[in-house]
Amino acid sequence: MTTPLATHAGPEAWSGKQILITGGAGFIGSTLATRLSQYGSKVTVIDSLVPEFGGNLFNLDACADQVRINFSDIREPFSLKPLLKNVDILFNLAGQTSHMDSMTDPHTDLNINCAAQLNLVEACRSVNPDIRIIFASTRQIYGRPEYLPVDEQHPIAPVDINGIHKYAAEQYYQLYHNLYGIKSCIFRLTNTIGPRMRVKDARQTFVGVWLRQLIEDVPIEVWGGNQLRDFNDVEDVVDAFLIAALDDKCYGEIFNLGSHEKISLLALAKLMIQLNGAGELVIRDYPQDRKKIDIGDYYSSYDKFSDFTGWTPTTPLEQTIERTIGFYQEHLPAYL
Amino acid sequence: MTTPLATHAGPEAWSGKQILITGGAGFIGSTLATRLSQYGSKVTVIDSLVPEFGGNLFNLDACADQVRINFSDIREPFSLKPLLKNVDILFNLAGQTSHMDSMTDPHTDLNINCAAQLNLVEACRSVNPDIRIIFASTRQIYGRPEYLPVDEQHPIAPVDINGIHKYAAEQYYQLYHNLYGIKSCIFRLTNTIGPRMRVKDARQTFVGVWLRQLIEDVPIEVWGGNQLRDFNDVEDVVDAFLIAALDDKCYGEIFNLGSHEKISLLALAKLMIQLNGAGELVIRDYPQDRKKIDIGDYYSSYDKFSDFTGWTPTTPLEQTIERTIGFYQEHLPAYL
Repeated sequence: MTTPLATHAGPEAWSGKQILITGGAGFIGSTLATRLSQYGSKVTVIDSLVPEFGGNLFNLDACADQVRINFSDIREPFSLKPLLKNVDILFNLAGQTSHMDSMTDPHTDLNINCAAQLNLVEACRSVNPDIRIIFASTRQIYGRPEYLPVDEQHPIAPVDINGIHKYAAEQYYQLYHNLYGIKSCIFRLTNTIGPRMRVKDARQTFVGVWLRQLIEDVPIEVWGGNQLRDFNDVEDVVDAFLIAALDDKCYGEIFNLGSHEKISLLALAKLMIQLNGAGELVIRDYPQDRKKIDIGDYYSSYDKFSDFTGWTPTTPLEQTIERTIGFYQEHLPAYL
Repeated sequence: MTTPLATHAGPEAWSGKQILITGGAGFIGSTLATRLSQYGSKVTVIDSLVPEFGGNLFNLDACADQVRINFSDIREPFSLKPLLKNVDILFNLAGQTSHMDSMTDPHTDLNINCAAQLNLVEACRSVNPDIRIIFASTRQIYGRPEYLPVDEQHPIAPVDINGIHKYAAEQYYQLYHNLYGIKSCIFRLTNTIGPRMRVKDARQTFVGVWLRQLIEDVPIEVWGGNQLRDFNDVEDVVDAFLIAALDDKCYGEIFNLGSHEKISLLALAKLMIQLNGAGELVIRDYPQDRKKIDIGDYYSSYDKFSDFTGWTPTTPLEQTIERTIGFYQEHLPAYL
């Protein structure tokens, strides 16, 4: 299969570009920073290293010499302006991603996922209205699917505070695009996995904590198990971001990412154990306090983005899991 | 025509009920406070009297002896808890309503329309989970209509920051209803008019500033003029709130209000001049800086609420305007 990566997002196109990545020490942000520094971009990373979020300086080890790290919090409005000047493309990945934390501390979720996003888009408008913005949103805003696969027309019905706020932030970007011409492209990510993900706990995804359990030789705890999910390899997500960023017809649009491979949680746990060569699992009833925010089966249609750009996810799930297990077998202590 | 008001919202049902009204010195809040104090409810009003919002102590003149006024701001979380204890029904009307202000100062809009609403719903959950909440939202969240009349299934596409935040707040109430059983009922109001509305400027509705122009003998300024709108008399809106508040099947629901009478802005201006007995108008092009947030024709379907409860708006537009002009002919200085 021919992928359009060579034309759209080849290394040459990125050489010398001024890139800013919020949440750049996090899972996806650091993978992007690593790739773009290989491509010769001038990358600045913003990260606040809030312990509950995904930032981890170890993630930037491979590109530490090429990347400029700016320790700051996007909730703080003034420091954003000098950082945004002269930026060609902003990859805006900073956020509070934990669904449970959004329920126990909704104000922090509001501040990081709404107030800080307003700061960002206002700062762009003020100092760099020609900037291009790739904004990472989440499938969480769809809630419990009314049909599968879920496409971008699916009704919005968040089952948690995090989803409400991420949707509000999407609307800021759409509004500023329509009113002020600030170019933004929104991706609604499904479960993204790969090296550098948070594994300390389930704050990014349950797969993180499963990886830790696997490496630490603790039984993987599966809640329910029949729920179907789709997963994207982080490198495929980075490909999607790079393709969109250089393709002006993607701005003003909202795209799902996703995968044609669907797998039940139980089958996933078994696959992880098999690829690890050892491990156990226990199946538990879905916890009562989380039942109301359980969304059942979920997988995305990424047809729209595919039609726009030719992107499809190219990494088989098995290969992603194998590579990720290998990474944490070697580096787990850096993530605890 | 028989209306269901006698059974649903008759005075007897309200006698002795503990009522809290946020934004209770504002236009709709004070009309509600006046009515409920006539019905023998024990009414407490919260208002911060922020000069740009709708609060005006003159609005509570008719019920000043019966109503307890608590001067405070719902953005301040701690003072809400003692006020919410033992309340039977909360009419939650406090908010930033100006579309233009939400664009020039989006953070204030976020704080009052989102952060403060989180405070409120969290405080209810903590000190009074059995409370019933009537929440005033706005047709603004629909944006430019895709079809008319606009019903509750119409896509959400706010054309300003205010609409984004009001929709997020709606979702808080829906989420807390679904997850925690906090009973709430959401009304999406169309243009509401009547005595006690803000007329100092167009922050609540353009009709306010037209009333002022009319009384001050300044030409009414009509932008465009062909746009159709519907209007509700504030007393009809109060009826709707009272009916819903005592009808448990309304909780967990979202209802449009609206009117079967539709009128163009130009025809409305002419009607106002006619009923005032004097006045002039000038027609101007829609201002360039507001064109992008112009929604064209708008009117609501209120069939859902009508089907649920039998409510229909009973006051003819002409009668509302006549009564309102009379009010401001007498009381304009109290509103400047």
